[in-house]
Amino acid sequence: MGWNRVAIIGAGMTRFGELFDRSMEQMTAEAFTKALADVDKGIDPDRIEALWFGNCMGSLSGNEIPSGAVLANALGLVGKPASRIENGCPTGSDTFRHACMGVASGIYDVVVAVGAEKMCEKPNRKSLLESGRIGNPTFAYSQTATTLFAPQIHRHMEEFGTTKEQMAMVAVKNRYNGSLNPNAHYKTHITVEDVLNSPEVCSPFNLLDCCPQTDGSACVIICKAEIAHEFTDEPIYVAGLGCATDPLYYHEKELLTGFACTGGAAGQAYKMAGITANEIDVAEVHDCFSGVEIMNYEDLGFCNKGMGGQLVQNGETSLQGRIPVNPSGGLMSKGHPIGASGIAQVLELYNQLRERTGERQVKIHNGYGLQHNVGGYYIAVSVVSILTRTL
Amino acid sequence: MGWNRVAIIGAGMTRFGELFDRSMEQMTAEAFTKALADVDKGIDPDRIEALWFGNCMGSLSGNEIPSGAVLANALGLVGKPASRIENGCPTGSDTFRHACMGVASGIYDVVVAVGAEKMCEKPNRKSLLESGRIGNPTFAYSQTATTLFAPQIHRHMEEFGTTKEQMAMVAVKNRYNGSLNPNAHYKTHITVEDVLNSPEVCSPFNLLDCCPQTDGSACVIICKAEIAHEFTDEPIYVAGLGCATDPLYYHEKELLTGFACTGGAAGQAYKMAGITANEIDVAEVHDCFSGVEIMNYEDLGFCNKGMGGQLVQNGETSLQGRIPVNPSGGLMSKGHPIGASGIAQVLELYNQLRERTGERQVKIHNGYGLQHNVGGYYIAVSVVSILTRTL
Repeated sequence: MGWNRVAIIGAGMTRFGELFDRSMEQMTAEAFTKALADVDKGIDPDRIEALWFGNCMGSLSGNEIPSGAVLANALGLVGKPASRIENGCPTGSDTFRHACMGVASGIYDVVVAVGAEKMCEKPNRKSLLESGRIGNPTFAYSQTATTLFAPQIHRHMEEFGTTKEQMAMVAVKNRYNGSLNPNAHYKTHITVEDVLNSPEVCSPFNLLDCCPQTDGSACVIICKAEIAHEFTDEPIYVAGLGCATDPLYYHEKELLTGFACTGGAAGQAYKMAGITANEIDVAEVHDCFSGVEIMNYEDLGFCNKGMGGQLVQNGETSLQGRIPVNPSGGLMSKGHPIGASGIAQVLELYNQLRERTGERQVKIHNGYGLQHNVGGYYIAVSVVSILTRTL
Repeated sequence: MGWNRVAIIGAGMTRFGELFDRSMEQMTAEAFTKALADVDKGIDPDRIEALWFGNCMGSLSGNEIPSGAVLANALGLVGKPASRIENGCPTGSDTFRHACMGVASGIYDVVVAVGAEKMCEKPNRKSLLESGRIGNPTFAYSQTATTLFAPQIHRHMEEFGTTKEQMAMVAVKNRYNGSLNPNAHYKTHITVEDVLNSPEVCSPFNLLDCCPQTDGSACVIICKAEIAHEFTDEPIYVAGLGCATDPLYYHEKELLTGFACTGGAAGQAYKMAGITANEIDVAEVHDCFSGVEIMNYEDLGFCNKGMGGQLVQNGETSLQGRIPVNPSGGLMSKGHPIGASGIAQVLELYNQLRERTGERQVKIHNGYGLQHNVGGYYIAVSVVSILTRTL
């Protein structure tokens, strides 16, 4: 294809959690500062030529205005090009994808992708979201993420015999992984019984099957591959980028036990990387709900269709398993600040492939890691990125 | 810099105006269909590998959901990668810039940039914007575009003696140009007296100094330069792309008689194109208000600082002038459907450089055209693109 190769040279994130004491700008500045400090051989911020900002909800909640110019100001990079990307739940990963294209284009040599979201704070009283809630009875009762995802999980249970116990095992695994991640929102262990006994939110999801509402920011610094060694002896390269869309409405979707767009995005990324799912050592996937991670296993090719429940039950996606999934704790334990989530996944893979994640380090065989988000209005878009240790 | 060159091979737009009878999806489909039909040698839609969607207001007004997946569905391109770009008033031009980077990266060979906005329709009763308006007294009286731009125009008048008559001349010129554009929102001639006698909206802007609220969509199809001749014998190439940001607040801005970000974005684009302002044959600039076009002349280098009023007064920016500006009618006459505006500017330049705009055709000497938007929260971001006839 002849695309200019891209390398990651630094990554940083805030702790994910309820960060009531920090504004969106403060969170982005912290993630950026940590990413700068993470560059092994150091980097002058003036080297950064362009910025991409991932944020989904800020302008609605009225707590923050999520424009590229606001980010440039927050990071002390006023003057530089800055754009905001919004693509539903894959906002963070699509922001990373755009920053990569900026470098791959040859127009910019060094850029940053920053994602941030404030999910915990009550919307500002004067915001559209809050005044909408006050003035509008339907808004308070409208369709939520749980009701959008739940029917597909039920269908998966019906067709393949996937159980609530298997779903609970995803939650238990990701909570365990998160307990080893100082930046995770939740750090406590839970059991399958805890999940099954937690209150039902929306069948088949109990409370502990759901990811939390989380604030946070994450940042990665990327550059063209040729100059990566100026900044670190261990850059991680971008091997593949994929993005795919689906029909909007259920009556048009052909796949009801998974997400065709995940398969589409993964297919693009695998093709670009020249590998198959078998070569992935570690993955960070979109576990907004426990059952969704099970479907992701199948859509990403980690197991055959319908075998996702078995995969987690057999421990194959745990830290010591054949294909560890969500070593960071995932959305369910690390948290899901939408614009930051995908970038935090990239950060985890960056550190996993460099074997710098301590107790939650997985075994690296082939040197490939995969990042994945799926969502958006009507769950109709997915982004997948593949990272590699070797160019 | 070693970037892969990009060519425009087709462009289409809806009529701009009050399009109450068409949804956002319908408008994008019309612009896309016209762009396909505009490709001289024809194009199979299956050749299109990725989509970018520019929309600023849809999710707030509740009339439409502006996601990439919605666009992919509307255009019959479900499955393809699709992302939404939002960058205030430069949303359309930043969408074009991202589509160009997608091709320049070498990842995609043929892509589309589509912008659309529904500005005229009352926000849906259940939308955040409308329920916010109902529930929230401050929202109805908050800062508007006029009050954001007005202080800088006053300062320009104070420092350089720019007059309301000169501003009116911009309005008269752009209305005249728009009268020659079948796709323009306004097609009637006006006089300087008409402008001066129209009601004051916000000093120094009278009603006819302001662009209208307009619906519409515009689309360009772009591809890598190497394959452009498969589609047309007269491709137009992208010579330069720029984007720059400014401090957010007035007390931090160094330039109060113009927009430093416009100068920054233009500087990047000129440098990338390897030309100066003197080589631009025709420009489409951000005339949201008449006085803003005068400042743009200066910020883009078409005249010295403070001489913008003289430039329009001397007729140098009219169709037969030294540097024709807004031959399409500009935002003031063609209209300003935010997500579509920048892409419609690119479309006009595409047709001007191919000398296919009939009565409003300007003289092409050097073969360069320049597109410009400025705005966003606090007027802190600008995007500039330079197109060329020769690679």
